[in-house]
Amino acid sequence: MKIGFVGLGSMGAAIAMNLIESGHDVHVFNRSPARAEPLRKAGASVAASPAEAAQSAEVIFTMVADDAAHASVTFGDAGIAAGLKRGALHISMSTISVACAQDNAARYREAGLGFVSAPVFGRPDAAAARKLFIMAAGADEHLEVAVPLLEQLGQSVGIVGSDPSQANLVKLIGNFMLSVIIETLGEACAVAGKAGIDPMRLVELLTSANFNAPPYKIYGSLIAAQRFQPAGFSLPLGQKDNRLMLAAAEALGVPLPLASLVRDRFLSLRSQGIGAEHDWSAVALCALSDAGLSKQSPAG
Amino acid sequence: MKIGFVGLGSMGAAIAMNLIESGHDVHVFNRSPARAEPLRKAGASVAASPAEAAQSAEVIFTMVADDAAHASVTFGDAGIAAGLKRGALHISMSTISVACAQDNAARYREAGLGFVSAPVFGRPDAAAARKLFIMAAGADEHLEVAVPLLEQLGQSVGIVGSDPSQANLVKLIGNFMLSVIIETLGEACAVAGKAGIDPMRLVELLTSANFNAPPYKIYGSLIAAQRFQPAGFSLPLGQKDNRLMLAAAEALGVPLPLASLVRDRFLSLRSQGIGAEHDWSAVALCALSDAGLSKQSPAG
Amino acid sequence: MKIGFVGLGSMGAAIAMNLIESGHDVHVFNRSPARAEPLRKAGASVAASPAEAAQSAEVIFTMVADDAAHASVTFGDAGIAAGLKRGALHISMSTISVACAQDNAARYREAGLGFVSAPVFGRPDAAAARKLFIMAAGADEHLEVAVPLLEQLGQSVGIVGSDPSQANLVKLIGNFMLSVIIETLGEACAVAGKAGIDPMRLVELLTSANFNAPPYKIYGSLIAAQRFQPAGFSLPLGQKDNRLMLAAAEALGVPLPLASLVRDRFLSLRSQGIGAEHDWSAVALCALSDAGLSKQSPAG
Amino acid sequence: MKIGFVGLGSMGAAIAMNLIESGHDVHVFNRSPARAEPLRKAGASVAASPAEAAQSAEVIFTMVADDAAHASVTFGDAGIAAGLKRGALHISMSTISVACAQDNAARYREAGLGFVSAPVFGRPDAAAARKLFIMAAGADEHLEVAVPLLEQLGQSVGIVGSDPSQANLVKLIGNFMLSVIIETLGEACAVAGKAGIDPMRLVELLTSANFNAPPYKIYGSLIAAQRFQPAGFSLPLGQKDNRLMLAAAEALGVPLPLASLVRDRFLSLRSQGIGAEHDWSAVALCALSDAGLSKQSPAG
Repeated sequence: MKIGFVGLGSMGAAIAMNLIESGHDVHVFNRSPARAEPLRKAGASVAASPAEAAQSAEVIFTMVADDAAHASVTFGDAGIAAGLKRGALHISMSTISVACAQDNAARYREAGLGFVSAPVFGRPDAAAARKLFIMAAGADEHLEVAVPLLEQLGQSVGIVGSDPSQANLVKLIGNFMLSVIIETLGEACAVAGKAGIDPMRLVELLTSANFNAPPYKIYGSLIAAQRFQPAGFSLPLGQKDNRLMLAAAEALGVPLPLASLVRDRFLSLRSQGIGAEHDWSAVALCALSDAGLSKQSPAG
Repeated sequence: MKIGFVGLGSMGAAIAMNLIESGHDVHVFNRSPARAEPLRKAGASVAASPAEAAQSAEVIFTMVADDAAHASVTFGDAGIAAGLKRGALHISMSTISVACAQDNAARYREAGLGFVSAPVFGRPDAAAARKLFIMAAGADEHLEVAVPLLEQLGQSVGIVGSDPSQANLVKLIGNFMLSVIIETLGEACAVAGKAGIDPMRLVELLTSANFNAPPYKIYGSLIAAQRFQPAGFSLPLGQKDNRLMLAAAEALGVPLPLASLVRDRFLSLRSQGIGAEHDWSAVALCALSDAGLSKQSPAG
Repeated sequence: MKIGFVGLGSMGAAIAMNLIESGHDVHVFNRSPARAEPLRKAGASVAASPAEAAQSAEVIFTMVADDAAHASVTFGDAGIAAGLKRGALHISMSTISVACAQDNAARYREAGLGFVSAPVFGRPDAAAARKLFIMAAGADEHLEVAVPLLEQLGQSVGIVGSDPSQANLVKLIGNFMLSVIIETLGEACAVAGKAGIDPMRLVELLTSANFNAPPYKIYGSLIAAQRFQPAGFSLPLGQKDNRLMLAAAEALGVPLPLASLVRDRFLSLRSQGIGAEHDWSAVALCALSDAGLSKQSPAG
Repeated sequence: MKIGFVGLGSMGAAIAMNLIESGHDVHVFNRSPARAEPLRKAGASVAASPAEAAQSAEVIFTMVADDAAHASVTFGDAGIAAGLKRGALHISMSTISVACAQDNAARYREAGLGFVSAPVFGRPDAAAARKLFIMAAGADEHLEVAVPLLEQLGQSVGIVGSDPSQANLVKLIGNFMLSVIIETLGEACAVAGKAGIDPMRLVELLTSANFNAPPYKIYGSLIAAQRFQPAGFSLPLGQKDNRLMLAAAEALGVPLPLASLVRDRFLSLRSQGIGAEHDWSAVALCALSDAGLSKQSPAG
């Protein structure tokens, strides 16, 4: 299939590579062209703009950092909307806000373009290994096209509903739940550490029992070791998703005290010089530090 | 082996039955004798006091509701300590406080009696199916006796350390983490519900992705359905464990904002007439109710 | 002095009336003209637009509901900026965001117009009685003009600094502190009520001791009586200020757990049908309700 | 009047001195006798035990640190209860728990002894200057005796009710409210500090407006200057009162999220080596530190 792909960060590059390897004819674009090079070598053609990547595509994927980047590649002067043919489909895999997805879907509907939100759970290694969990939402006729493609990219595709923004909400809920796991593990390791139980042993015990989901294992070992670099998912991106979750919940009239707590953790860390080079699991540092157990001396 | 068993609530009865079925010679005691009857029919002998259940035992198990019950069956006038032979072993499976376990271990050490803490994760059906996750701690020579027995009762036995109270602390940490999962699911279902996503669908999507640990599945479906009766683990017991966790953490000098939040949820529910007949997952009602979504009208 | 006045809500109307009574030549504008009528009768002339109210003014005051209203009367097609003469001064008494004030100050600086932020503490009756506490910030040459006028309108004028937005921040901090007093009184009255102490008696005892500041007296008696209507300062306006405080603090990198708690209270109340017709002291209903003491049955 | 006085800490000594200066015949006791010396020089007689101080007294006062000290001087082997004549009155000014006061009142009732709780608001300098605010509760016939004496010791005596423990509850509520003021000022000064507004100036502006109660002035200036030594009211005592408030509220079924937040602040400070030598207003350090503004490097 003729496919466009915009956004070649570590997630996007891995997914685009899989599309090439699955035999699709892939036309990529990235703001900084160096990141497109490995894909060109693998057989992709490289576009000069999002519009150009969209022109011949039946389906175009985007995987970009935030609402602003999404708006820029989609509605900018040389954006996807300007290039996409009537009847073609845009699959947005980025973690963008509910409001941004709603706005995009509405504008495309008027323009006769298809829009599916398909955000993912999983880190770059999971993307490369086609092990992503994908949440998809959109109109039935668009999902018919999107789902078979998405199934090539992950281990499961969950259909959320017919309104694309619902998939974005589920993604934000998932990241919210992950952030609470991180905070929980921080508090649990603080208690264990002060009681003379090695936090790493605590994590092994719990994840060998009923806390056997991947996030407890992955974040548990990072937090027990206080190893927050390099960043698998960087702190500012986690903070952004927390902000989007709180905004979506506020619009719906739902208080989220857990998300408010995590929000304050992010602010505290940023004020102490913990930032973009840290994994978002560094949120656990706050609980460890409040118990007098932090190994990090926050940078000045 | 000659085994005593004190405390035949729904957990204790299921475990004692498994010991009988494994061929042990089991001597049971329960405060209200009616609950001993099914065990007697299955081959157990019934003692008139904890001391009597302990007299001939090489190992005696206890599975009782709280610190007060533990102290009563252990150090009461006709308690286990009065009956147990020097060199015999007491395996406490109850969820009791860290301080209570420390005190018990110290008194037994002086008296030449063995003490192992072996609290469990799992509900009565898991106990019956020998699917419990068991955390064990105690001196090496006591664990040598205890672990083979415990392996007959659960799907895994994790060794925490040589101080029995450490197993109690890990159990409290585990219940703390479960309580946070409950609160998290309450907040997540509140967001989904108000966005027009069926909370049950949300739970399916998330537990089919990376939130695939049993607690998310079990509590997720209860909370999505707002089905908090009958109680698998009753609200007051959950509240007691929250109190024990906060007390243990305070003694260690560790603030636990997540546990503080859950504490306030328990207090709020109790003040609104939600109590012993409800499962502790009713904690999620607070988040649902704060979002205007509670189906329950709290009793007057 | 030739004075313009835009925004004749209950606060603005009382202040404008005082300016008339102090002998100034006042030119008023309000979106809904009916509210200008009593001022016209008292001697004001009525403008057809903010620009017209600004045209002949040496100083123009604004007292409007929020950032959107401020932008609309200031930079709209017929806004103040279009009418104001070079060298004239705009005194903004509204509770607007720090960002909005910063933006306005920057644009006026370029245009050669003066801008002073002078938000106030006090309810409409205090405005009428010239008992407002006024926080003022701006360049020295603008404060020289503004302060003597402001001193005619309140019992004190505190100079915050030379950056107008700092006065807006102090106002938001003040409202944040008031919101915490409200929450505190809700929790205190809940404890007293359940202990058999009349909450009204509690408030009398405390405000006769060292809690003798006006907010404890005013909000204490409203909360003890659970009398949240009519609204002296309406719930949605309080919620807006909470939002502005959290946004300003986030921009500065400061976590405010107390403001986060109050934020959740507002969301919960709105989801239960408590809204614009209630005073913001209804925030205390949450603590009372969590203790099973609320007299209100939230509307459906 | 013949008066006993037990407990000569900085508060008790100042109060006892005032009783001597008012012409009473005062018989003092203190655990460490050196603290009785200045009172002896001023005319008091010094007893060898609480019982001896009580023997000839019509009224005996106690002002001790906590429940344990209260129980020790009251019910210990040579305690007040052993010395006090039937019909004599014990006025307890200590900040003790509600449960402790209830227990004491019940035991005295049986023994035909009178008990009034009369805890105070105010620091040692206020005690010396007879400026205390006193909350009193007890049976009418006991208040008839107590109130005229208490009026000699403070600037106001508020009658809470007929159950002595109600005065202790009001005192705990008051200290709870003070702790929230401290946290509020910490957060407010953090915002101001990062916005380039001198925190001391912020405190002046607010306390010159409607936050003109003494706690805002006293704690505001300490917090703005980050001057937490010497301790006017030491951190561990503040932590104790927070614990008593949470226990009393839990017994009544009232969640207090504000007190829970402050509880976590105390735990965090203690884990960082901030303790007995610091004033409890150091609670504000947490908010300042979370914003990257703390001047203190917590001791190792």
